Amino acid sequence: MLENQSSIKRLVILGSTGSIGQQTLDIVRAFPKKFQVIGLAGGQNLELLKKQAEEFQPRLIYYKSGRKNAAFKDYQFTSMEEMAIHLDADTVVVATSGKLGLNPTLAAIKAHKTIALSNKEPLVMAGEIILSEMKKSQGWILPVDSEHSAIWQCLNGESLKPARIILTASGGPFFGLTAAQLEKVTPEQALNHPSWKMGKKVTIDSATLMNKGLEVIEAHWLFDIPLDKIDILIHRQSIVHSMVELADGSIKAQLSRPDMRLPIQFALSYPQRLANPALPRLDWSQLSSLQFAQPNYDDYPCLKLALEAGRQGGTLPAVLCGADEVAVELFLKNKLSFGGIARLVAKVMEKHTPTSSASLEDIMTADEWAREQAQKLAGGVK
Amino acid sequence: MLENQSSIKRLVILGSTGSIGQQTLDIVRAFPKKFQVIGLAGGQNLELLKKQAEEFQPRLIYYKSGRKNAAFKDYQFTSMEEMAIHLDADTVVVATSGKLGLNPTLAAIKAHKTIALSNKEPLVMAGEIILSEMKKSQGWILPVDSEHSAIWQCLNGESLKPARIILTASGGPFFGLTAAQLEKVTPEQALNHPSWKMGKKVTIDSATLMNKGLEVIEAHWLFDIPLDKIDILIHRQSIVHSMVELADGSIKAQLSRPDMRLPIQFALSYPQRLANPALPRLDWSQLSSLQFAQPNYDDYPCLKLALEAGRQGGTLPAVLCGADEVAVELFLKNKLSFGGIARLVAKVMEKHTPTSSASLEDIMTADEWAREQAQKLAGGVK
Repeated sequence: MLENQSSIKRLVILGSTGSIGQQTLDIVRAFPKKFQVIGLAGGQNLELLKKQAEEFQPRLIYYKSGRKNAAFKDYQFTSMEEMAIHLDADTVVVATSGKLGLNPTLAAIKAHKTIALSNKEPLVMAGEIILSEMKKSQGWILPVDSEHSAIWQCLNGESLKPARIILTASGGPFFGLTAAQLEKVTPEQALNHPSWKMGKKVTIDSATLMNKGLEVIEAHWLFDIPLDKIDILIHRQSIVHSMVELADGSIKAQLSRPDMRLPIQFALSYPQRLANPALPRLDWSQLSSLQFAQPNYDDYPCLKLALEAGRQGGTLPAVLCGADEVAVELFLKNKLSFGGIARLVAKVMEKHTPTSSASLEDIMTADEWAREQAQKLAGGVK
Repeated sequence: MLENQSSIKRLVILGSTGSIGQQTLDIVRAFPKKFQVIGLAGGQNLELLKKQAEEFQPRLIYYKSGRKNAAFKDYQFTSMEEMAIHLDADTVVVATSGKLGLNPTLAAIKAHKTIALSNKEPLVMAGEIILSEMKKSQGWILPVDSEHSAIWQCLNGESLKPARIILTASGGPFFGLTAAQLEKVTPEQALNHPSWKMGKKVTIDSATLMNKGLEVIEAHWLFDIPLDKIDILIHRQSIVHSMVELADGSIKAQLSRPDMRLPIQFALSYPQRLANPALPRLDWSQLSSLQFAQPNYDDYPCLKLALEAGRQGGTLPAVLCGADEVAVELFLKNKLSFGGIARLVAKVMEKHTPTSSASLEDIMTADEWAREQAQKLAGGVK
C-alpha cells in the first residue's frame, strides 16, 4: 500500500445513506481539508445516495442493485469489497447493517486498511477470524460505537489490558415495563429510542437489549478480554458511554452528550482530536446526577441469548445474528410480537449444533441456515 | 545522572511520617521488589521516623532538629535538599506540608529527578520558577494529589492540552452550613473530613476550600492551562476525582473509592500500573448515583482569595500560602475562629503590594512578610 503523502485522509464509506453514514458525512463537511470521500456505498436510499454523490464527488460508487445504475454514469461502479481495498483509501468506514459488513471488513484488513467500524455483526459473527487476519496484516479496527469508542478512549495511553470493562446500557425505551406490557410493544414504540438516533435494526436491537449483548461480544474481541470481565451497568441517561477498570483499581470513564458524531469523528481524526463546535458539550450546571443500576437479566431474554452465544462461540454467534435479523424484520412488518423476537431467536439457537472452531464458510452457512430456520419457525412463535 | 540499571525504583521520601508519607511506605511494603527506600525525612514524629528507619533501612535520613539525632547514628544524616538530589534517588516523593517542599522540589528538578509531588505550596508559590527550571532539565513532576492524578490519568495518551479541566471538590465537612454556623466550627469538627484521611493542615484547608483554590493554581501550572479553563464542581462523594474536557467535547473522568494510596502508587509505578489487592475497588452494585452541584463561591471566601491570588500571580500566591499557614495554626490552637481564617488571609493580602514578576528571593521574602503580618494582625480579626 502506498502511503498517503498529503495530510488529507481519504475515506471510503460503506453504508453512507444510513444513520452513521450520514453523520460521517457531517464530519467530512466540517473538516473539508482533513477528509476527502473517495467512495460511497448505499443500499436503501437511491435518492440520498445520488445527492451524496453530487455533493462529495467520490470516484467510486456502489448501489445494492449490483449493476451500474444510470444515475451513476459518471462514477466508477464497484463492489463494496473492491472499494474497501482500493489503493487510495486510507480509512474504510464500515457503517453497514447486519452481516453486510463482514466481507468488506475482512477484505479491508487483508489490504492493511484502517477500518472505522460501527457495524457490530462482523466481529460478533467472525471475531476470531478477523483477529487472526489482523495479526497477519497492518490493518486495524477503530471502534465507532459510542460504548467501544469510550473504552478505547479510556485505554488510550494505558500499556496493559483493562482488569474489567463496564459497558453502560441505556436499558432501551422499555426499561421497567413488565413482561406483559412488553408483549404489546409496537414497532412505532420500539423505534422511538430515548437518547440515540440510529438505524431501524439497531434501534430494535437496543429495545430488546440484543444490541448490548452484541456489544459485549464485540468488546471481547476488540479489547481481547474474557467475557466474564465485561459487566453491564444500566445508565438511562446515556452520558457515561462506558468505563474501564485498570489493574490498580482506577476507573476511567468517557462522557458526553449522546451524539454519534463524536465517536465517528474520533475514529476519523485519531490520534488527533479536532475542535468541532457542532458537537454538543456537557453543561455541568444542568447536570446534577448520573444514575446507575444493575441490569436484571431476566428482563432481557435477548441479552441472555447473546451472552450465551458469545460464551459458546463457534458458529452460534452467527446463528444468533442471522435469526435476529429475520426476527427484527418480521417484528417491523407486524408479523412477530416484540417478545417473539427473543423466543424465535432462542428456538433457532436450540436447533443449532454449534461447531467449536468455525471457518468463514461454516459461519456463512450457519447464518444462512439460521435465516431459513427463523423464517420457517416464525409461524409457531407468538 | 546515572541511569538506574536495575528495575527497582529507589525512593527518597520527604515527609515520611505524615499521612502521604506513611501511605507511600504502604505501597513500598506491597511491592518490595519494585521499590526501595533510600532516604527518609520526617519532622513531626521522631518515634515513627525511628520505626520507619528500622523497617526500611534507608541510607539517608533527616529529622527536623537539623542535627544528627542519637537515634540515627547508623544512618547518613543529611538535609532534605541533599537527599532530593542524591545520585541514587530515582524518584523523590515530596510529601511535606506548606512551603517546606519548595526548596527540595527545586533542587530535585535541577538534578533531573522524577518528583512525586503531594505538597501543593511549591507549585502555588513558585509555579513559574519551577516550570522554567523544568524546561532546562530532565526533571519532571508527577502529581500525587487525587485530583491532579485524575487529570493526569485522563490526559495520558492525549496529544493535546485539555479544553477544560473540571476539578471536583467534596465541599468539605461543612457543606451547606450557614455563615453563622460556620463561625462556630471547632478544630475537632474541622479535622473530621468526610471522605479523606489527611494531615491537619490539608484537612483544615479542605474545610475552608482554600485547598481547592490551591489545587486550581497547581493544576494551572502542572497542565499549563489558563485559570479560567479550570472549573470547580462540587461532588460530595469523592468518587469522581476530576475530569478533563478534550478539544472535541469528549470528557474523561477518573473514579475510585477515595484512597490516597492509588494516586501515590500510580505516581511511583508510572508508566506501569500494578495490581494491588489492598486498593479498594468500586462496587457498582452498591453505587446507584453520582451527585454533582455548582459551587456557590460566596460560601467559600478562602476559595475566592486563592483564585484571586492565582489570577494576580507574582508574590501574591506566596502571601496567600504564608498567611494561610499561620491562620490555620492559630485556628488549631483555638486562637482564631473558623471564619477568621479567611478574614485574616484577606487582611494580609490587602496589605501586600504584589510584584508581577517574582524571583525566588521575592517569593521567600513575601512568605516571611505574610507570616509576620498574619501574626501581627490576628488579634484584630474575630
